[in-house]
Amino acid sequence: MKLVDKSSVEFTNVLASKAAVPGGGGAAALVGALGTALAGMVCNLTIGKKKYAQYEEQVKAILAKTEEVQNCFLKMVDEDAEEFLPLSKAYGMPANTDEEKAEKDRVLQDALKNACSVPIKIVRTSYEAIKLHEDLVDKGSKLAISDVGVGVQCLRAALISGQLNVIINIGMIKDQEYVSAVKEETDRLVAEGVKIADDVYKKVEKVLSE
Amino acid sequence: MKLVDKSSVEFTNVLASKAAVPGGGGAAALVGALGTALAGMVCNLTIGKKKYAQYEEQVKAILAKTEEVQNCFLKMVDEDAEEFLPLSKAYGMPANTDEEKAEKDRVLQDALKNACSVPIKIVRTSYEAIKLHEDLVDKGSKLAISDVGVGVQCLRAALISGQLNVIINIGMIKDQEYVSAVKEETDRLVAEGVKIADDVYKKVEKVLSE
Repeated sequence: MKLVDKSSVEFTNVLASKAAVPGGGGAAALVGALGTALAGMVCNLTIGKKKYAQYEEQVKAILAKTEEVQNCFLKMVDEDAEEFLPLSKAYGMPANTDEEKAEKDRVLQDALKNACSVPIKIVRTSYEAIKLHEDLVDKGSKLAISDVGVGVQCLRAALISGQLNVIINIGMIKDQEYVSAVKEETDRLVAEGVKIADDVYKKVEKVLSE
Repeated sequence: MKLVDKSSVEFTNVLASKAAVPGGGGAAALVGALGTALAGMVCNLTIGKKKYAQYEEQVKAILAKTEEVQNCFLKMVDEDAEEFLPLSKAYGMPANTDEEKAEKDRVLQDALKNACSVPIKIVRTSYEAIKLHEDLVDKGSKLAISDVGVGVQCLRAALISGQLNVIINIGMIKDQEYVSAVKEETDRLVAEGVKIADDVYKKVEKVLSE
């Protein structure tokens, strides 16, 4: 059974347990999916409303993107678990002889890069979803603007959580070219993404205080 | 069927739809449950480990609290929806005569306070859960410290999202004594809670960079 097919109660309970998966990466992907779904909800509450007719086509385009991004996040909940298991297995390989050490190191290095791939995608996808909210904050129905605020807060959390899960993996990766490229990209996306999320949130607060 | 008994895929899809519930409040409660579950996971990965024997009793006490808080969050996912429906109904009441206006106003004011009660509890409970992570960051297994980081980020999002949902309701409440009391409490908990969450996150980053 896929993790995303578990009920929220079951998922939360297995997350809290000592089971190897889901972990922080899977939780981050689910939080990202929820944050993106809120953008989709705002689109759905805006489309067809006369007051926002001028943005209709743009909001429809945003909605299509939210659906793509939301599905991508939901897939990552299970992908993160699938990539973690080989890593956990690699750690358990014997390393008594030089041959065993070399083989373990080779398998471990590959497994680390694979385990890193989902958190990197969480960072990229969270950034993308934050940009969707940024676009929506001026075009979406003001009646649902608090949901833009909740959405960017969820995605801000998913973004930073993705980065944390990158950090715990790249620390042990020896390929320094790979490490610096990943670090450069994720640091940049997190810095920019947090800034955009905080700006969008301030706009929401401003509208709500009017 | 309860919202929390839906699978993550179903919950996310209905959140994205124009259905009246779940909304931002329910999403915030679920994100809070996930953030708290991560504290539970860290406890479960710490208990029984020799290296952390000195904290064993304290970590067991934190675990018991995380279970309580997590269940409280999961219940709020549905409670938020239950309190929203009467409010949505109150908005639809007729207001053609003075009598109808007075009656609508009376029902609406009550419904607004009820609808506000869950977001207020989300703020309080998120604050409480952030404090559990604060306690855990020094006592939990360092192998799981990134999950403390993800957990506080989720709870920071839940905390602020709870506040947003308070704001959208209290704006229309006429009982000014109630409004100032709620505003004072939630503003204080959010300011303190965000500060603690950010401090805990910095500690996590520091440990991971060592």
